[in-house]
Amino acid sequence: MDKAVILLSGGLDSSTLLHYAMKRLNYRCLYAITFDYGQKHSREIWCAAWQARALAVKEHKLVDMTALGALTAGASALTDAGIAVPDFDTLPAGQRDQPPTYVPNRNMILLALASAYAEAQGIPDVFYGAQTQDRYGYWDCTPEFLDRMNAVLALNRRQAIGIKAPFVRMSKREIIAIGRDLGVDYAHTWTCYRGEQKACGTCPACEDRLSAFRRLGWRDPLDYETLPSSA
Amino acid sequence: MDKAVILLSGGLDSSTLLHYAMKRLNYRCLYAITFDYGQKHSREIWCAAWQARALAVKEHKLVDMTALGALTAGASALTDAGIAVPDFDTLPAGQRDQPPTYVPNRNMILLALASAYAEAQGIPDVFYGAQTQDRYGYWDCTPEFLDRMNAVLALNRRQAIGIKAPFVRMSKREIIAIGRDLGVDYAHTWTCYRGEQKACGTCPACEDRLSAFRRLGWRDPLDYETLPSSA
Repeated sequence: MDKAVILLSGGLDSSTLLHYAMKRLNYRCLYAITFDYGQKHSREIWCAAWQARALAVKEHKLVDMTALGALTAGASALTDAGIAVPDFDTLPAGQRDQPPTYVPNRNMILLALASAYAEAQGIPDVFYGAQTQDRYGYWDCTPEFLDRMNAVLALNRRQAIGIKAPFVRMSKREIIAIGRDLGVDYAHTWTCYRGEQKACGTCPACEDRLSAFRRLGWRDPLDYETLPSSA
Repeated sequence: MDKAVILLSGGLDSSTLLHYAMKRLNYRCLYAITFDYGQKHSREIWCAAWQARALAVKEHKLVDMTALGALTAGASALTDAGIAVPDFDTLPAGQRDQPPTYVPNRNMILLALASAYAEAQGIPDVFYGAQTQDRYGYWDCTPEFLDRMNAVLALNRRQAIGIKAPFVRMSKREIIAIGRDLGVDYAHTWTCYRGEQKACGTCPACEDRLSAFRRLGWRDPLDYETLPSSA
């Protein structure tokens, strides 16, 4: 239990997971993989690179998957310049189970690629930072998704591969609490869905992040364009 | 039941499937998708383009997935120039369940991408040309793989997506018999794993193809470098 592949977006969850895998689960030799899939918030990729360097991972692969954004043009506010990222407050109730920020089948694609990379290296463990608050809108962040993906991979006849998501039943608040214990520098993580210089403070991702910090009574070190008055 | 996405490699099985979906299953509007994943036998991509054009598909996407070959360097004879494609006869028995020509997790990756493309278009049916003879060496060509992939995709909350593999329990011989009825021009399909000008005639893929034609008593219209004396 020494080597693992980790899907590192550069967001808060996966950055914490990187530290968690190394410092709590004692994986000494981490292979991080980050995808450019045409996301507007490509600043997260810089954060992934920063975190990977800070933890001196064995290897950090940055993979060009802009094909995904191109194949799903018109279908996601995360990748299509013509579709605005909605504020959390304005999201109609009928869209919350699969909001405009959902990217078609993204996590199956990225985990399948991470698993191929792991298989080629003979590494059985693939980590990914799903957490419980994303379940509201993303079927591909749920425990059921994880179980069924692992059921597919279990058919491999030579190389055992298991996807592990130790945060899948944790809230963002719990994850940040763990991360602070482990010394994660959250100034170098990116969450905002909008691709601006500063985090917007109002999109669903900012809302979740700010609310988690607020509940812990801690200050989020990121700069925000707008801070909700309750923050 | 009018539109479908089809994973079209340009091989014999998927080319037949294209005709089958259009002429037998009456899908009028087909979206073909072909991947360049760094395969040595990239000639199959030309065949995919030829078949797509011959059937006047609605759209043919050629997707650059050379990232897959790069991520799995050293792990497959199909993508790594340093690993020779073995002849069928020389394949040790112990390697047959997952031979050197297996590409780590390839089919999960390509089907996940095809499904994302389908989802973005609002198309529920994704066709893929798995057939029974590949089961010997490829866990990702089996009915179990198909069922489990569909179990993952069934979690999608908005867009029903189902992967269909009508040939999954058929032999290559049966597929060719169907294809001949449907007027498939097998001179424009590519099967050989080796990336040469002519099909080699001796790799596991050529062996399967030649043997299927032989059992039907039909001549394969492709040119071969070497034809086994029994062919």
